Amino acid sequence: MKNVAVILSGCGVYDGSEIHEAVLTLLALDQQGAKYRCFAPNINQYHVINHLTGEVSENETRNVLVESARISRGDVENIEELCVDEFDAIIFPGGFGAAKNLCDFAINGENCTVNPLVLNAAKTFANANKPAGYMCIAPAMLPFVYGEHIVGTIGNDAGVAQALTQLGLKHKNCAVDDIVVDEKSKLVTTPAYMLATSISEAAQGINKLVTKVLELS
Amino acid sequence: MKNVAVILSGCGVYDGSEIHEAVLTLLALDQQGAKYRCFAPNINQYHVINHLTGEVSENETRNVLVESARISRGDVENIEELCVDEFDAIIFPGGFGAAKNLCDFAINGENCTVNPLVLNAAKTFANANKPAGYMCIAPAMLPFVYGEHIVGTIGNDAGVAQALTQLGLKHKNCAVDDIVVDEKSKLVTTPAYMLATSISEAAQGINKLVTKVLELS
Repeated sequence: MKNVAVILSGCGVYDGSEIHEAVLTLLALDQQGAKYRCFAPNINQYHVINHLTGEVSENETRNVLVESARISRGDVENIEELCVDEFDAIIFPGGFGAAKNLCDFAINGENCTVNPLVLNAAKTFANANKPAGYMCIAPAMLPFVYGEHIVGTIGNDAGVAQALTQLGLKHKNCAVDDIVVDEKSKLVTTPAYMLATSISEAAQGINKLVTKVLELS
Repeated sequence: MKNVAVILSGCGVYDGSEIHEAVLTLLALDQQGAKYRCFAPNINQYHVINHLTGEVSENETRNVLVESARISRGDVENIEELCVDEFDAIIFPGGFGAAKNLCDFAINGENCTVNPLVLNAAKTFANANKPAGYMCIAPAMLPFVYGEHIVGTIGNDAGVAQALTQLGLKHKNCAVDDIVVDEKSKLVTTPAYMLATSISEAAQGINKLVTKVLELS
């Protein structure tokens, strides 16, 4: 039975993991016969967004690991304790948390940096040539993990694609129900809610990503 | 195209909506060609639970409507504004939020009361003979909505079933991948995470519930 590490970044599209993407990932893994364990960094969120108004909740602080536990019904581990030997693959759902908490692409764009613990975890899978799946905006981290000229997608947003190209990503446009595969690096990406206009659209690309990640492992 | 009101109770199994159940409901509705809109009461949560430790977060307050917005990517409306004429059916996902925020069965058991706005919304669907789906612990509200002798399930937990029987529910045991239907009241219930040991198990019952609710509408 394949075992997959799923990396969460909080709980909610605007300041954490995109909840649908995270849940659809767990569903696809379970339906396709794989086990999973969830991980997140034990750090404060960049900020808290009131998802009803879209505004920043001033004076409120939430922890990425604690909030991620909501998505995984309590079962989440500190990413510091992620041991690559116990897993066949790693998957990063999207949401602004991937670009505000795991890295800071949403704030600093081309001057982006990646959280060192997250970067270390991602790199151990890359260096072990174990497959990985990155969805939505999570591919912003790819040039830091794999070096320049890694192939991936965030959909077809020209501005975002250009910023990622400057970081070193070889960006390929991709439809919402499809995936881009860098076979050499065993890397799979899909646009998810960078393009999806409904949850079943997001599910199509995510199901394909999970299938391909498991196939490569 | 059928239009379904989905009632949320926060965001996280221990103090709000069970996230998997809520997302699986939206997925099933979308995949089966129905539209949906999400609603929640604009009230404070009964409490906030740290989902990593399972402990109450003292001195922290969260709003049910605001937190529910995380599950629906911002698109949630105050349940006060729910107009039954605009919908073909109503569905209540579970999670402790259904038994702590929508009603207080988790706190007061057989002395349970239901939030008046939630009760009013649920009753308008029942009185209009429009179909409804209640999953997990949400059936605790049923005797208040439909009167005594309404037929439903929370799975097979003898203690919970007995407490609900004393409230007036005619409880039927049910497997995790199945549903119980009260045809006269067009009411569908499924155990979901009252019994599920995995997300794909929960999905089986929830998919059946959604299919039956749409079929009855």
